[in-house]
Amino acid sequence: VRTAAPGPATKAEILVEALPYIRAHHGRIVVVKIGGEALDEVRLQNVVAEDLALMALVGIELVVVHGGGPQVSEAMRRSGVEPTFVGGLRVTDDAAMEVVREVLVGSINSNLVGSLCSAGLHAVGISGIDGGVLVAERVRDLGRVGDVRVVRPDLVLTLLGDGYTPVVASVAPEDDGTPLNVNADAAAGALAAALGAAKLVYLTNVEGLYSDLGDRGSLISELKASDLEKMVPNLSAGMGPKARSAVRALGTGVGKVHILDGRVEHSLLLEVFTDEGVGTQVLP
Amino acid sequence: VRTAAPGPATKAEILVEALPYIRAHHGRIVVVKIGGEALDEVRLQNVVAEDLALMALVGIELVVVHGGGPQVSEAMRRSGVEPTFVGGLRVTDDAAMEVVREVLVGSINSNLVGSLCSAGLHAVGISGIDGGVLVAERVRDLGRVGDVRVVRPDLVLTLLGDGYTPVVASVAPEDDGTPLNVNADAAAGALAAALGAAKLVYLTNVEGLYSDLGDRGSLISELKASDLEKMVPNLSAGMGPKARSAVRALGTGVGKVHILDGRVEHSLLLEVFTDEGVGTQVLP
Amino acid sequence: VRTAAPGPATKAEILVEALPYIRAHHGRIVVVKIGGEALDEVRLQNVVAEDLALMALVGIELVVVHGGGPQVSEAMRRSGVEPTFVGGLRVTDDAAMEVVREVLVGSINSNLVGSLCSAGLHAVGISGIDGGVLVAERVRDLGRVGDVRVVRPDLVLTLLGDGYTPVVASVAPEDDGTPLNVNADAAAGALAAALGAAKLVYLTNVEGLYSDLGDRGSLISELKASDLEKMVPNLSAGMGPKARSAVRALGTGVGKVHILDGRVEHSLLLEVFTDEGVGTQVLP
Amino acid sequence: VRTAAPGPATKAEILVEALPYIRAHHGRIVVVKIGGEALDEVRLQNVVAEDLALMALVGIELVVVHGGGPQVSEAMRRSGVEPTFVGGLRVTDDAAMEVVREVLVGSINSNLVGSLCSAGLHAVGISGIDGGVLVAERVRDLGRVGDVRVVRPDLVLTLLGDGYTPVVASVAPEDDGTPLNVNADAAAGALAAALGAAKLVYLTNVEGLYSDLGDRGSLISELKASDLEKMVPNLSAGMGPKARSAVRALGTGVGKVHILDGRVEHSLLLEVFTDEGVGTQVLP
Amino acid sequence: VRTAAPGPATKAEILVEALPYIRAHHGRIVVVKIGGEALDEVRLQNVVAEDLALMALVGIELVVVHGGGPQVSEAMRRSGVEPTFVGGLRVTDDAAMEVVREVLVGSINSNLVGSLCSAGLHAVGISGIDGGVLVAERVRDLGRVGDVRVVRPDLVLTLLGDGYTPVVASVAPEDDGTPLNVNADAAAGALAAALGAAKLVYLTNVEGLYSDLGDRGSLISELKASDLEKMVPNLSAGMGPKARSAVRALGTGVGKVHILDGRVEHSLLLEVFTDEGVGTQVLP
Amino acid sequence: VRTAAPGPATKAEILVEALPYIRAHHGRIVVVKIGGEALDEVRLQNVVAEDLALMALVGIELVVVHGGGPQVSEAMRRSGVEPTFVGGLRVTDDAAMEVVREVLVGSINSNLVGSLCSAGLHAVGISGIDGGVLVAERVRDLGRVGDVRVVRPDLVLTLLGDGYTPVVASVAPEDDGTPLNVNADAAAGALAAALGAAKLVYLTNVEGLYSDLGDRGSLISELKASDLEKMVPNLSAGMGPKARSAVRALGTGVGKVHILDGRVEHSLLLEVFTDEGVGTQVLP
Repeated sequence: VRTAAPGPATKAEILVEALPYIRAHHGRIVVVKIGGEALDEVRLQNVVAEDLALMALVGIELVVVHGGGPQVSEAMRRSGVEPTFVGGLRVTDDAAMEVVREVLVGSINSNLVGSLCSAGLHAVGISGIDGGVLVAERVRDLGRVGDVRVVRPDLVLTLLGDGYTPVVASVAPEDDGTPLNVNADAAAGALAAALGAAKLVYLTNVEGLYSDLGDRGSLISELKASDLEKMVPNLSAGMGPKARSAVRALGTGVGKVHILDGRVEHSLLLEVFTDEGVGTQVLP
Repeated sequence: VRTAAPGPATKAEILVEALPYIRAHHGRIVVVKIGGEALDEVRLQNVVAEDLALMALVGIELVVVHGGGPQVSEAMRRSGVEPTFVGGLRVTDDAAMEVVREVLVGSINSNLVGSLCSAGLHAVGISGIDGGVLVAERVRDLGRVGDVRVVRPDLVLTLLGDGYTPVVASVAPEDDGTPLNVNADAAAGALAAALGAAKLVYLTNVEGLYSDLGDRGSLISELKASDLEKMVPNLSAGMGPKARSAVRALGTGVGKVHILDGRVEHSLLLEVFTDEGVGTQVLP
Repeated sequence: VRTAAPGPATKAEILVEALPYIRAHHGRIVVVKIGGEALDEVRLQNVVAEDLALMALVGIELVVVHGGGPQVSEAMRRSGVEPTFVGGLRVTDDAAMEVVREVLVGSINSNLVGSLCSAGLHAVGISGIDGGVLVAERVRDLGRVGDVRVVRPDLVLTLLGDGYTPVVASVAPEDDGTPLNVNADAAAGALAAALGAAKLVYLTNVEGLYSDLGDRGSLISELKASDLEKMVPNLSAGMGPKARSAVRALGTGVGKVHILDGRVEHSLLLEVFTDEGVGTQVLP
Repeated sequence: VRTAAPGPATKAEILVEALPYIRAHHGRIVVVKIGGEALDEVRLQNVVAEDLALMALVGIELVVVHGGGPQVSEAMRRSGVEPTFVGGLRVTDDAAMEVVREVLVGSINSNLVGSLCSAGLHAVGISGIDGGVLVAERVRDLGRVGDVRVVRPDLVLTLLGDGYTPVVASVAPEDDGTPLNVNADAAAGALAAALGAAKLVYLTNVEGLYSDLGDRGSLISELKASDLEKMVPNLSAGMGPKARSAVRALGTGVGKVHILDGRVEHSLLLEVFTDEGVGTQVLP
Repeated sequence: VRTAAPGPATKAEILVEALPYIRAHHGRIVVVKIGGEALDEVRLQNVVAEDLALMALVGIELVVVHGGGPQVSEAMRRSGVEPTFVGGLRVTDDAAMEVVREVLVGSINSNLVGSLCSAGLHAVGISGIDGGVLVAERVRDLGRVGDVRVVRPDLVLTLLGDGYTPVVASVAPEDDGTPLNVNADAAAGALAAALGAAKLVYLTNVEGLYSDLGDRGSLISELKASDLEKMVPNLSAGMGPKARSAVRALGTGVGKVHILDGRVEHSLLLEVFTDEGVGTQVLP
Repeated sequence: VRTAAPGPATKAEILVEALPYIRAHHGRIVVVKIGGEALDEVRLQNVVAEDLALMALVGIELVVVHGGGPQVSEAMRRSGVEPTFVGGLRVTDDAAMEVVREVLVGSINSNLVGSLCSAGLHAVGISGIDGGVLVAERVRDLGRVGDVRVVRPDLVLTLLGDGYTPVVASVAPEDDGTPLNVNADAAAGALAAALGAAKLVYLTNVEGLYSDLGDRGSLISELKASDLEKMVPNLSAGMGPKARSAVRALGTGVGKVHILDGRVEHSLLLEVFTDEGVGTQVLP
């Protein structure tokens, strides 16, 4: 059976429910990291774009960071190279890095900026190379793969201050300018910390964090950074970098970290503007 | 039967429905005139305050204007004077003017500012006297009753620019400084015109404008200023000043005028942020 | 015999006498608290308005605070209630509070703003409710009477910065928004302290502070805060709150406190711009 | 008989008399041209400095222009050269120009800046060379003597905007940078016109303008620019350039021109801040 | 024989030769369009980056636009598609457009930004999608190929104003957001016109414009827009769009257009900062 | 044999050589003190003006300080007074001070400002008197000779911030306003320290600092402040004040001090923008 359309009273009630959340987040910086999975389907990307647009329009200073793992792997396979991973990090030779950057910057970033502009934002795509926002250093033995070493948030703050929404692709130069592939979860965490963000949201393809990875009933709705830190060694390859970055970000002033299910439509909106508890939230 | 509480999907759907309206109104000036009736009941005033807070927080440059007819009449009666009206305008001798100002500025304005502050706004109460915002001139034979002759919107713009929400009581000085009682509908219209407002909303105690005053089924949902002008001679004493001010405001650049039922909870929110058609809207 | 009108040389001499005082006060914040008595007579209020206008025009950042004790008492009596005081503070039930606010905000504040505007200032009337400037907490057993607990001077500084003169009525909300009656002397002291004022001036209906309350020859022209503190237990009901507020203000950075006779025409001007010693000045 | 010192009431009265003038001039640009005579005596220069300081401190945007005829002539004579004049303008060869600039810029300007700083202003001495404020072109056959051809008021406005008082020596470069001696009366008029000054004041060594040059009883207290223009052919060598510049300045938007007696102490103050009529005022 | 290294005197002489050019260009907007050929070789790209860095550092407001024809063609061939051209414009189906964007935005733009950052600039890569800078419309029958229809230079001006150097890839969205491939020569011309640029420079792989295409001795060093317009029908496929865009830009306020040989090291520097005549300049 | 004119490649090479220096100095404050000798010859002064113009135009925040020893001595002799020196400082009675100021402010400063304006800068001449930039105190027994006691760099920073180049004559007032003659080397050092300059350059009439004053082969190209300090007792009368000021400036945050030969054309340019080692540089 289909539920009846909500009447005016219901509509008003829900808008009013959002009021205290809008008030609380107004003028605060929120960093949202969108996983490659959430960007794979055009329809889902447009839903996410609507949610982000709403957040920015009600006064949240929004910074979007994205990865693109599946898309990069697929592009590599198309050009005949089989992706290899060591400890969850992609082994990236020079040819692979060319693919990484073309896909992340030239395709995913540009598409996401387009969706956000269509949803009414003044989005601007950048990577860590633009304006010297990020500097990375190589991780031993993985080729063109790097860890973020320095964040210079000036360009991000300039864009926010002038009413633009920065959309950041996880590519960053070494000191000598050579672009490296950096983990997007880690880049989002480092940016959130450097910006003193009120919130860091990971939009993933899981429901949240499970206390028992095999048991879907063991979803944790809230935990402390110290407890998350203890869980790190036993987390999945995808959750590990998020958890480590979350712990570090919460330790350097970020207010809260959320792990949400990007496959659920408007999970972002529900988390930010309603009383609904969605996914997992991590407190300092 | 009571309808079930809205689920997450419904909540998200309604928030997303608001997106194009937020986008459209962002950074625009909206003048909302609240009638004395809507302010008489504490609960209703708090609901209106929530609606106004939501409007301001999502980026609307909000200016509130209020009257206080019923409260003034009641205060006059309490001090033993029977209110007299000529052509819908209160005959106001010097003693009555003292009551008008004490009630409008010292009671209604201050209460409304308090409600708005509790709802999360930085509201600031002013009258036409403060910062020389309004200058009035006497209407013949009604004592201390005036028409707005000059609007200097500087203080209003300063307050908006610094993030405050101005709440304006309909009192204005003559050239020599003597305070006069001015019609709040007219003051709202004059302010909206001087500010180049995108919208002027009258929150009243009727459903809207009826083509046939006796027939509640004849509610007009939309009409043009030129058609409204023709209706002016036949309107009620309360609707007359609104209609005249609406016509004049639409003629000098105001985008739209709305006549809403302030007794319906959140009618303001529904009008501004949803697809629901509420009350009457007047187009230029 | 009437003295001859001053000639050009005398005029010039007096203007030049003002020069070092203008130089010294230029750009400094001066808080002037005007007692209800000084506001009771229209002529005297206009003289005070001229003095304040001159101060603001020569570059003093002027903040005006006012009480309205006599006017409130009279209004209460008119509505059939006899005012009661405990320890110099008015016992204020809910009905009385309504009268207090109507008189202070709707009548006295609005009148004073009008006079200042006529004297050439861009005055703006506010109370502690507007922009959340003051938060108060109840004083035990006196009903709706409060002490200032928090000062948020943002709105006052915004208005000063934009060339407006804030005129503050001594009404302040509790945490839950309920308006309380606060002592205007104390409110002026708290504002002066929060603003780091160079000067806090009490315009009263006495000549100044007497060392022997019965002996008009014992007027003190200058004393230290520490000496004033010792006198507090023996002061009159009117002088007590001034003295306590003065001591506290001088202890938190206010430069000087003056107690002047508001009944003497232009005492404010003489104190601020001439070599004449007027009233009592208290040094840190 | 010596008049008694003015009492407090007189002092207050005179300060209040200044109020409407301060109000009227606040934020307006006033250009004061000081003749070399008024600068010759240290005591008189200090009196003038006090007057100018008072003007600037009460909010007048003050620009000072000075000549230095007598001092230049004296310096030339000291170095063995007899000054020659043609039509009121000094014949200036290259050696004479060196003296002109040394005296105007290095002595008179620097002294006047010093006096104004001692009187409490942030004075800054410039000539038409600094910041390219003036460009002059040669007057035929008089050597290094020029007429102001271009005024670029940017530096003057920058200094005013940052709270400094510009003091301008009447030296201006030709297009190729060669400094010329320009008439200070004309320079003051050109600057006043370019700045849209509210007032241009000539501080001279005569009482004002006489309708009959030989009759000191024929002082004109007020006249129109058109009437002044008719008088130009019959004016003295000193008054001619003032009158011509006054007519031109009034024709291009300057509000009023005053010709005051700089030998009368505080004539400037009396003119600007009191009801006293001093010297001659010329209306557009 | 190798010429001796220049001595100090020569060095100084050349720097001084640059002075009038620096003075003339200071604070002016210069748009430089770099052809794909100039970007193909790392060494040449670094030389160009040095030239651009010098231009920006001496105060020129620099906007860089780039194409990438050869690189796109090569990438298409790598993925097994043979590029087709109609009238000099690439036929672009959806798959080809994906390649275009990945190469232009993800590879060439990102590389160029990296080189400029290494040369000391704060470069920021954008395409016409970011911040809604460009809107395009389809050119009939060529698939995803468009003409620039709207330029909104806000983001470019914001970046310039905050000290960043915008580097623009020639991709622009249709009204519905679909990205199109736009000719970089035309995009540079449209941007230069919208920005009111003082100069538009085309860095190409030819010496300049020849009056007789087959005769290398017929290089034109200077011509007028009206003469260039007459030559358009007979120009090469590469020169055509440049010439048409140049004529249009000069007709809407751009000061000068230059066609330089990007294969000659530092031709940009020589043109902008020395007396050397390089390539072809087109005057309005 | 005359060397051939440099070809395009050489020109480009030298401009590119300047790039890292421009990058390094961009936005930094550099104080250049020009000795009276360098100003004596018109041609040399114009060369220096070109160098300074180039420095300012490429983004260096330039402050020029000048002395005028030889010119003052000559002027004194012209007026029949023989200059006397004690320990390298000019004995200055009141008449001599008049000459000092006329020559420094009215002649040298004004000429230098003119040259800089002709070279394209917006130069503004000031002395320590203007805007209260310097306060001096008398050096015992030398008459009107002073040491800089206070630097208030506000006016200098205002001028720099508004795009003007301040040119400072070494005259400074005592507390009571009396102008004193201060050593220009010391004034430049004190200004550089107060401004936190990146560089302080002395443009002198010697090649640099010699380890053995008699041996021109003993020119020191680089040394430390601590080593310079040890040399102070044995330095020439001209070099002593420079060395002492240099040591003090380097001890309070100035980055580097240079002693250059102002007689060598463009030595300033070579030092600042090329790899050529010129004169002596002193490191902290």
